[in-house]
Amino acid sequence: MQLLEDKILKFGKVYPGNVLKVDSFLNHQVDMSLIAELAKELYNQFKDCAVTKVITVEASGIPLAGATAQFFNVPMVYAKKSASKNMSDNFYCAAAHSYTHGGDYEMRICKDYLHKDDRVLIIDDFLASGKAIDAITDIINQANAAIVGAGIAIEKGFQHGGDRLRANGIKVVSLAIIDQMNADGTIAFRPQ
Amino acid sequence: MQLLEDKILKFGKVYPGNVLKVDSFLNHQVDMSLIAELAKELYNQFKDCAVTKVITVEASGIPLAGATAQFFNVPMVYAKKSASKNMSDNFYCAAAHSYTHGGDYEMRICKDYLHKDDRVLIIDDFLASGKAIDAITDIINQANAAIVGAGIAIEKGFQHGGDRLRANGIKVVSLAIIDQMNADGTIAFRPQ
Repeated sequence: MQLLEDKILKFGKVYPGNVLKVDSFLNHQVDMSLIAELAKELYNQFKDCAVTKVITVEASGIPLAGATAQFFNVPMVYAKKSASKNMSDNFYCAAAHSYTHGGDYEMRICKDYLHKDDRVLIIDDFLASGKAIDAITDIINQANAAIVGAGIAIEKGFQHGGDRLRANGIKVVSLAIIDQMNADGTIAFRPQ
Repeated sequence: MQLLEDKILKFGKVYPGNVLKVDSFLNHQVDMSLIAELAKELYNQFKDCAVTKVITVEASGIPLAGATAQFFNVPMVYAKKSASKNMSDNFYCAAAHSYTHGGDYEMRICKDYLHKDDRVLIIDDFLASGKAIDAITDIINQANAAIVGAGIAIEKGFQHGGDRLRANGIKVVSLAIIDQMNADGTIAFRPQ
């Protein structure tokens, strides 16, 4: 999506270790007009999939997931992260790993808010190795609900999580896919 | 606001220790149509205040803050919580206390996203003792920005944080104020 690629080129910052900082418009300060455009595009891509629920993980996925859920007129559920091992029986939970913060964490969703007749669209701001999507998928499978696909703002194509998920049959729509980031700050997008 | 009070009466659950669970529509599963209505009302209450930025704290404040920022057509910034003491010099930070999770945490906002000419509307899902608002206020003061007020979904009036903030001259608009919650699950709202 040209609008997002332009924004990344203009405001994104590349740091060593393949870190892309987009916290001026996506995940700390958030440009809600941009988010609305991204959400509309994700709605168009999944509008024939009979989505009943949008699921993301706190906190950075919430703005895009909320705006997307509004287009579908369905509830948005955000999985909660918890360092606590003291899980209530009323939660589905799955282990995940955070590259940004380091370390493992548990992701959980109350059983009351995910049912076997749900058709879930997963939304997140970033897709890299795909571990977060794996954990949400695990939870959706525990609930015997259906996954209609994943809608992502920025995919780090060079980490191949998206390719792996697509090879497994999941419809993954990423609005910008970065195939290369260089030390001089240049960014190469995958043509879509 | 009648719409929100009705929703609380229908779906809210009162637990011992003055806990009100509204995670079926406000802060785990989120009814985005409701959020849009709440945001529109907050926009109407603050539309003459020349708001340039909406600030909240991750994670539960984000849906309402994002929707409100969209009405104002200004950026939304969410303060990040961190247990780490290893603060970068480029962040404003303030100490806060979480009653829900227990324990203290640090709240931080990158200095790039809050300026002295900003006029900030603070948004949150809950207001109880007001400690989270105090911490955001501290950060806004560090940046020498102006606070136009606070827009809240649910205020626990019986914990008096809202009354204290109003007495200090802050315009606090809470869309539902609960003056009493009883063991039998009944809830009394403050007439507004």
